[in-house]
Amino acid sequence: MNAFSLERSIEVLSRTPVTLDALLRDVGDPWARGTEGPDTFSPFDVVGHLIDGEETDWIPRARIILARGRSVRFEPYDRFRHHGRNASRTLESLLTEFAKLREANLKLLQSWKLTAAELSLPGEHPSLGPVTLRQLLAAWVVHDLGHLAQVARVMAKQYRPEVGPWVPYLPVLTDHEVPRS
Amino acid sequence: MNAFSLERSIEVLSRTPVTLDALLRDVGDPWARGTEGPDTFSPFDVVGHLIDGEETDWIPRARIILARGRSVRFEPYDRFRHHGRNASRTLESLLTEFAKLREANLKLLQSWKLTAAELSLPGEHPSLGPVTLRQLLAAWVVHDLGHLAQVARVMAKQYRPEVGPWVPYLPVLTDHEVPRS
Repeated sequence: MNAFSLERSIEVLSRTPVTLDALLRDVGDPWARGTEGPDTFSPFDVVGHLIDGEETDWIPRARIILARGRSVRFEPYDRFRHHGRNASRTLESLLTEFAKLREANLKLLQSWKLTAAELSLPGEHPSLGPVTLRQLLAAWVVHDLGHLAQVARVMAKQYRPEVGPWVPYLPVLTDHEVPRS
Repeated sequence: MNAFSLERSIEVLSRTPVTLDALLRDVGDPWARGTEGPDTFSPFDVVGHLIDGEETDWIPRARIILARGRSVRFEPYDRFRHHGRNASRTLESLLTEFAKLREANLKLLQSWKLTAAELSLPGEHPSLGPVTLRQLLAAWVVHDLGHLAQVARVMAKQYRPEVGPWVPYLPVLTDHEVPRS
């Protein structure tokens, strides 16, 4: 159990770009471009998706909440925007871009000096309904960690045929047999 | 699909210590010491377990295979050795120790200049039965990635109560409801 705090959230949010960089920069395409099957994300896709999140999801939604306008309903989020946007990019340029966007967004977040009252302000998720700014920021943290876990899992699965009888001792190989994210 | 190669394996094995360092060094205890429930690993425990692997699992088992003795049966591996060993250690000292052990083990592995014939040499896992050196090394890679995914998942779950209605959109929160590793 870890009660929400902005400081604890930023501990994770600030580490994600350097963690992904450590894991992925200059790895070969068999690791970077492998997936779990049709319509699932490769590590390359995950970094593109995280960039989309910086540009169109978390901070833009926080701004909608903080504007306290008549509507606090979020714009729907396009999970596949990155497919077209990044078709000719390298993984390395995406990692660098993600780190820059994240750094700027965390500076902005910290500049807001959010109070407990502001963290309780309401937003409206287009399909999940009423949420608070605090829940939005907590979801941002968990979203990062979920995609980090996904990158590691997708990479692991590229070696599934190579481990022979070890499969039952390596549960990551049989997680998400029907991909969920 | 990613056919086994020593070079591709080392791409991952060499990145694991710096990746875990980026994610975990100097994070607070709520992230470092949280678990998924009784008898499951915290991120701190995972680093201790990976140290045990360097000292007692992967390279020692590779040596047994390469010795080509009358018995190629591996010693059983103690998954909880780290509990007693590391009770008074800091996460930071474990991260540093893991990086040093891994670096030395990868130097040793590369010094062996393993041939395809050597990679096909047999070992005997105490419960899984006959395996090859190639499968052992592939399992080492997948084991790293599985525990990296686990660290991210365990951290994510510390914020499960904080995300409110976002749970169904964050599948990492409901992975391994009955912990498997």
